[in-house]
Formats: sequence, C-alpha cells, structure tokens
Amino acid sequence: MTTNKNENVLISELELRTLGKRAFQKLGLGDQDVEDLIDILVMADLFGLSTHGLSRIESYGDRLKIGGINPRPNIQVERLAPAIIGIDGDNGVGPVVGMRALEAAMDAASEFGIAVAFARGSNHFGPISPYSLIAAEKGFASIIGSNATTTIAPWGGSDARLGNSPLGFGVPNPDGKHFLLDMAMSVVARAKIRNAFKRGEQIPNTWGTDAKGNPTTDPKAALDGFLLPIGGHKGYGLALMVDLFAGLLSNAGYLTHIQSWQDAPDKPQNLGHFFILIDTKRLGSSQWLSERMLDFANILMDSPPADSSKPVIVPGMIELAKLEKQRKNGIEMSPETLNLLRQYAGD
Amino acid sequence: MTTNKNENVLISELELRTLGKRAFQKLGLGDQDVEDLIDILVMADLFGLSTHGLSRIESYGDRLKIGGINPRPNIQVERLAPAIIGIDGDNGVGPVVGMRALEAAMDAASEFGIAVAFARGSNHFGPISPYSLIAAEKGFASIIGSNATTTIAPWGGSDARLGNSPLGFGVPNPDGKHFLLDMAMSVVARAKIRNAFKRGEQIPNTWGTDAKGNPTTDPKAALDGFLLPIGGHKGYGLALMVDLFAGLLSNAGYLTHIQSWQDAPDKPQNLGHFFILIDTKRLGSSQWLSERMLDFANILMDSPPADSSKPVIVPGMIELAKLEKQRKNGIEMSPETLNLLRQYAGD
Repeated sequence: MTTNKNENVLISELELRTLGKRAFQKLGLGDQDVEDLIDILVMADLFGLSTHGLSRIESYGDRLKIGGINPRPNIQVERLAPAIIGIDGDNGVGPVVGMRALEAAMDAASEFGIAVAFARGSNHFGPISPYSLIAAEKGFASIIGSNATTTIAPWGGSDARLGNSPLGFGVPNPDGKHFLLDMAMSVVARAKIRNAFKRGEQIPNTWGTDAKGNPTTDPKAALDGFLLPIGGHKGYGLALMVDLFAGLLSNAGYLTHIQSWQDAPDKPQNLGHFFILIDTKRLGSSQWLSERMLDFANILMDSPPADSSKPVIVPGMIELAKLEKQRKNGIEMSPETLNLLRQYAGD
Repeated sequence: MTTNKNENVLISELELRTLGKRAFQKLGLGDQDVEDLIDILVMADLFGLSTHGLSRIESYGDRLKIGGINPRPNIQVERLAPAIIGIDGDNGVGPVVGMRALEAAMDAASEFGIAVAFARGSNHFGPISPYSLIAAEKGFASIIGSNATTTIAPWGGSDARLGNSPLGFGVPNPDGKHFLLDMAMSVVARAKIRNAFKRGEQIPNTWGTDAKGNPTTDPKAALDGFLLPIGGHKGYGLALMVDLFAGLLSNAGYLTHIQSWQDAPDKPQNLGHFFILIDTKRLGSSQWLSERMLDFANILMDSPPADSSKPVIVPGMIELAKLEKQRKNGIEMSPETLNLLRQYAGD
C-alpha cells in the first residue's frame, strides 16, 4: 500500500470492478478490453499487490489522455507456427494485450500440449500472478515474462541498460492452492530503498550501486544509481534472458530501446511479453496431479520452522490467502486511488 | 578444477573423446549412448566446467559398477500431445537420457514451433550449457532444468528438502556468440564454503545456514547446514519451480523422494528434467535475429565498466571463449581424472 494502512478503506470486489470499469470506459476503452483490464488489475488488488493494481489508473490514465497509450487498439493475432502465436498489441493498455496473448496461448496449448505467445507493441501489463492464476485454474502450467524500463546496469557496467524484468511461474493444484511465483530480478524494490532514505537509515551494500556502479550503503546514492540483481551475475543473467525472450524474440523493443513511460509518457513503449503455457491434462489425470501437488506442499511445509513464529511458506500462499480474505471482507484500497477512479468515472 | 592449476595437463579434444569413449564402453554402455554422453561431458570440460565434465567418471563409474545406474537403458519416448514428449530414461546415465530428450524436443519444435520434453527415471545429466549450445547451433532458443539431491531448506524451514536445481536458458546468435545462462539457485557452491573452511576464513552470512536453519558466518556450521538460495525467498521459489517442472510434472521423483547418489549409490535416483525448445526460424529470418542479437550484445557491452580492469560480461561469454581456446590449445584436465579414465579404459 502506498498510504498508511489505517487510512485505507474497504470496498467490495463488485463495487471496485464496477467503478474501475466506468473509469476506463470513460478513458475510451472498448467493453471487452475493459473487462480484461479489470480482471487483471482487480486481481492484483485482491492479491495485495496494490502498486500493480487499480492504482495504475494514475499512469495509465495520464498516458491514455495524451495518446501515449492507444485506447482502441487493433490487436493482431498471428499464427507464426502451429504452437507459436505472435501478437501485435498496437500500443494498447498492457493487461488488454496480455490477456489476448494469454488466451491465444491457452487455446494453442489445448491443441498441441504446449504453446507460446510472443507479444510486442505493449505497455506495463500488471503483475504476472493474475495471469498465472487464470491459467492454473484451467489446468495450465505457465512461464510468463515481460521486459521493463531500464533500472539495472549490466554486470560490471555503470549505467542502466537493463530492466528489472519480472518472471513468473505457475503450476496448478487441482484440489488445493496453486503454486504461483512472480518475481522481479532486483534484491529489493526501489520503494524499499526510498523508505530507508526517508527514515535516514543505511542500506545493505547488496541492494544497489551508486551512479558509478559501485555498491553503496547510502540510500540516496543508490536512488541516484542502479538496483542490484539477486545473486549478482545470476540475477543479471536472468533479467537479460527474460528480456531476450520477452523483447528480442517477440520483435518488441529491448534494453535501452524501451521508452520510459515516466520520461516520455506520450510515446509508445513497445514493451514485449512471452507466455509459455503447458496443458497439464496431457501429463496425467487431475487426481494424479492433485496427489503429487498435495504431497509436494506437505513435504515443504512439514519442515520444522527455523523461527517458530515464522512458518514455512510456498510461493503464492500469501497472495492466495489475501485474495480469499479480501473477496470475503472487501478489498483494502487507498482513498487516493478510489478518488482518482471516481474522477475518471465522472462521479 | 579440483587440483592445483599447475598440476593440470593438456590433452587434445580428440584424445580426450577417444579415451572417454573407451572408458564408458568398458563400463558397458552402447556405442550411440557413449557418443551422446561424451558429447556432453567433453563439452563441459571444454567450457571449463570440470566438476561437471569427465571427472564425473568417478561417481558414474562407481554407480554403473554396482548397478545404481543402468548401462543399457531401454529409453522410452512417448508423444503425450503433439508437442509434448514424455521420456522414461530407464535409469540410464543422465546425459544419455538428456540427449535423447533434447533431440526429441528439437524434432517436435521443428514441427510445431515450440515443444517440451519431460524426462523421468534419469540421473545427473551434466551441466545445462552443452545442451543449450547444441540447441542454439541449430537455431533453437531453450529453457532447460533438472532437479537434484536435496541441499536447500524450504524458506523458513530447518532441514534440506529441496535440491540446488539448475536452470538454463539459451538464445541463438546466428553470426556471433550464443547467449547461454546456466545457473544453480544457491548463492555459492558448497565447494566455495569448503575452501573458506580449509583456509580458516569466515563466510558472509548470506551463503548458508547452520543445521538449525539460522544464517551463519562459520563455514563449518554451514557445511553441516544448508545452502542459502540467491535473493532469499526468490531463489527458494525458483528452485521449487524448477523441481515442479523437472520432477513433479515429468512424473519423476521430487524433493525428498530423490535418492542421494552419495547415500544410496546403488539405488535409482529417478531424477527428472525438462527441455523447452523454441524454433527461432519461425520468428524471423536468420539476418533479423543476427542483427538484433548483435545490437543486444553491443548495448550491454558498451556500458562503461565500473572497474576498468573488469569488462562487462554477458552469459556464456566466458565459457565460449574457453571452448574456443581449449579446442585450439588442448583441454586442461586433472591427472586424477585422466588416470581414472585410463584405468576404466584398461590402458
């Protein structure tokens, strides 16, 4: 949450969907596109990933108003090979392009067992876990990635040439919690460094470098410099591979060719994504998968906790628990986001 | 290298291949299986990855002799869906099973654009980069993973229930160096902790935990404990996802079901692997790919180095340079490995 927890308000999923839909309809999006967009952004809020949820109305709205994003994209879906789909997003809102790609990849994977959709001409597509969840609910395992605006220096380099590209994996658990991993390649998000700076605290020298590429414990220097990837050269390698698959192979922009939506909000970003989907129904019965997934989760969670106050966790567990709770009790939203949605909706 | 660099000897690629082949033939492997195995292990040595090269004759040989690995596997290749291949390795030597899976996946990817092979009933399959290179040379991008014996505790847990599973990516560069990433999920290899212990040095508290799961700076305690994954919960999540794809979905063993080849060398390990292959020729011409890959590499390598003595690197660069050099000048091998090969070969 961007604001203090106490200031947040609760809103039901239905109310939030309705409000979000009206806001984006007023911004010029078509009905089906609005449905897809709201599916992803509201799921992000349900998961507690509020920085990637409807708070994005701020940047999406600004860019839609000045023509930086196309509200009525003519998205092209091309079959490049029986199981490869190429998507030209026509500079549409990211989750609209993402949902089209996901659906095309699921369709082709139903037919061939595995398929990939490569999307170009896109924008920020939200978090990955909502796509992985939609896929898992239909029995698909997934590997999904996107490139992003540059914030990471090449390993050994001294300027930002690589995005903090997210990579996600999902594996369905037919009778239990799906396993969902959604991660960016930096040790921490910039927000965490910003918070340390505000509190006047030093940061570990593994979080970021100064503007010359040297590791630093000074949060101000790190904010002027670059995020450090997890595991040093390993995270750098991963971020680079995600950009190769999501950007280069998809015929989108990559590395420094990606326009920053902050520096040039009126320009198309030409972001790229990839969606690899595998139909687990081809691998065994639902019962087979269910028994194995239950056993897998039990083995991990039966490990005695190192600290008894912190139980063992598995990827997706926290987000799925939050989703269940917020579907029941309402979604915690910042008043600023709700106000902005209401302004756009014309309330 | 396991021995001091000065003690290593140079041997030509052809001589090493011939010696390696004779050793594994004497251990009972069939001719084609020996070819495949030697392709992978010699390429590991050419890359400088000697711990994953022909030095493995030690463990492979021990296990072949006592029936822990099947020298004459009847490998089954089954089409589970048009673009999904299921491989039953019949407890063959890992690289033999791996090569069969890679070839089946490349064949299906030629037909459908993308394909996946899931292998079960396998053993240690060497490093990933040789498979990625073989694929890249034929124009395939790849995502390849394997599970492994347990050395990592679940995040927040206190006993080893998860392998340090390797994950690899490859993207072909038709007129330049292919991009190859081959990484395990631990911050460092156990060997690095062992070396610190031998030198009487402390280790950073990010490398491993003690036997109770608490981070430690004592190398002895870390050797009795568990490796820590890169980026904490992120690397844990990645290791777990690799096991889900390589082990659980492939119908192989996973997590603690995997037999340790050290504790039970006479038992089948039932390791699993996955090979996702994408035919880049379906995405654009060789010239299109070549221009983009060259541009991608140039953007990264043009970043001014933070330390002028350490130029910017890209994944695979070091290994491919080493391969080129060693193909010309001979391969650096430890005398122990050569002696063992000669013993098995009956010289």
